[in-house]
Amino acid sequence: MGKIYVVGLGPGGENQMTPRAKEAIACCDIVAGYGVYMDLIAPLLAGKEQIVTPMKGEIERCRLAVEAAADGHTVAVVSSGDAGVYGMAAPVLALAAAYPEISVEVVPGITASTAAAAILGAPLTHDFATISLSDLLTPIETIEQRVRAAAQADFVICLYNPSSRKRADYLRRACTWILDVRSGETPCGYVRNAGREGECYGYCTLRELMDFQADMFTTVLIGNSTTRMLGRRMVTPRGYRIPETEK
Amino acid sequence: MGKIYVVGLGPGGENQMTPRAKEAIACCDIVAGYGVYMDLIAPLLAGKEQIVTPMKGEIERCRLAVEAAADGHTVAVVSSGDAGVYGMAAPVLALAAAYPEISVEVVPGITASTAAAAILGAPLTHDFATISLSDLLTPIETIEQRVRAAAQADFVICLYNPSSRKRADYLRRACTWILDVRSGETPCGYVRNAGREGECYGYCTLRELMDFQADMFTTVLIGNSTTRMLGRRMVTPRGYRIPETEK
Repeated sequence: MGKIYVVGLGPGGENQMTPRAKEAIACCDIVAGYGVYMDLIAPLLAGKEQIVTPMKGEIERCRLAVEAAADGHTVAVVSSGDAGVYGMAAPVLALAAAYPEISVEVVPGITASTAAAAILGAPLTHDFATISLSDLLTPIETIEQRVRAAAQADFVICLYNPSSRKRADYLRRACTWILDVRSGETPCGYVRNAGREGECYGYCTLRELMDFQADMFTTVLIGNSTTRMLGRRMVTPRGYRIPETEK
Repeated sequence: MGKIYVVGLGPGGENQMTPRAKEAIACCDIVAGYGVYMDLIAPLLAGKEQIVTPMKGEIERCRLAVEAAADGHTVAVVSSGDAGVYGMAAPVLALAAAYPEISVEVVPGITASTAAAAILGAPLTHDFATISLSDLLTPIETIEQRVRAAAQADFVICLYNPSSRKRADYLRRACTWILDVRSGETPCGYVRNAGREGECYGYCTLRELMDFQADMFTTVLIGNSTTRMLGRRMVTPRGYRIPETEK
């Protein structure tokens, strides 16, 4: 009876990983993950077999993990952030569905949107849409429809995978879609390497965001119509009605 | 020079709280929070002054915390989940903006959407919208516009605060808006008290969700057009194009 833990490591630093995530890795004999994230948890991997494949080999990695579990091993598949947000939880569950004797447990972690939001202030204190700009598995038309819908309905927007070498202008395009309905002065923020070595962040307006050079380690947050810069932090109020006590 | 930590405790259990959240509470001399959540961290509060007000007194609690920091204290304001998602981070930053000498640090936690998703399977592996059905601070017309926009653009939808005694039919109304454009067979899931004592969860179709009795401790997840039940778990595939390796 094999078991798979799909573990979210959080932003990367050990002090933002939950005890439950650590325990799950500790009880496994095999750990599968992308090289960069395996390096972040190197001290936890001593004595364990490792399944490491390159970035694009992530489905192959899940398959190897599921096969190892079918052989009776206890396996951890690790992702940065939360393994259920654009992560490995879905492919592992899909592949493991063919082996009813394998039990799969998803261990949540702090996802990039809230890690980045905490650094920038409190931009996510009202309804928000989480959208990936990666068109590797999703047609760009679907992405455009979602960005436009989120902008029109005044969601705060959190962009994952805002850019890569092959789609250097996607963030700019997303900004133009949002600018059709939202002010160019809307406060925005970006965080690169949130919560791990090399963390950096900044603020700009939606108009300025058009010329920002993001990469795949960057999370971008775009305010809604109520988001303000307050004491140099990006803050979305909790609601559209001001309660008596906040006036 | 006072300091405020706005700390997300995660779902509630100590094994899902980050070391950083614990450290932040440990270095404070005053801790402010809602009674239920203070109880969850009772062992961490020994010897500390506590600011506890009833649920509706949360802004007053933030104000007392900010005033204590202005007096030179180190104060933690604790929330369940992530303090930046419908939490106390925004009001604390707004109130603290009047005192430039106070430094505010937001410590992220695992938010209810990903905690609930992990229990249900992997429903959030593609773009999703996080919406609160509480109309305490937001007009119901704005909520309706967002739910409809999210449904039309095929977002997975995560509902916070799906119901309360005063608005018992809000979840039902949200379902009718979504049913205008999404199949009644769409897989949905709900988790009550995710990650803490009394946790329970279940699955149903969108049509069945109309008659589900939620409460304020419940998080509801509504699949998009690709979400499936796989091996008795709720799974949204990672994308709309199937990569070669997943076929």
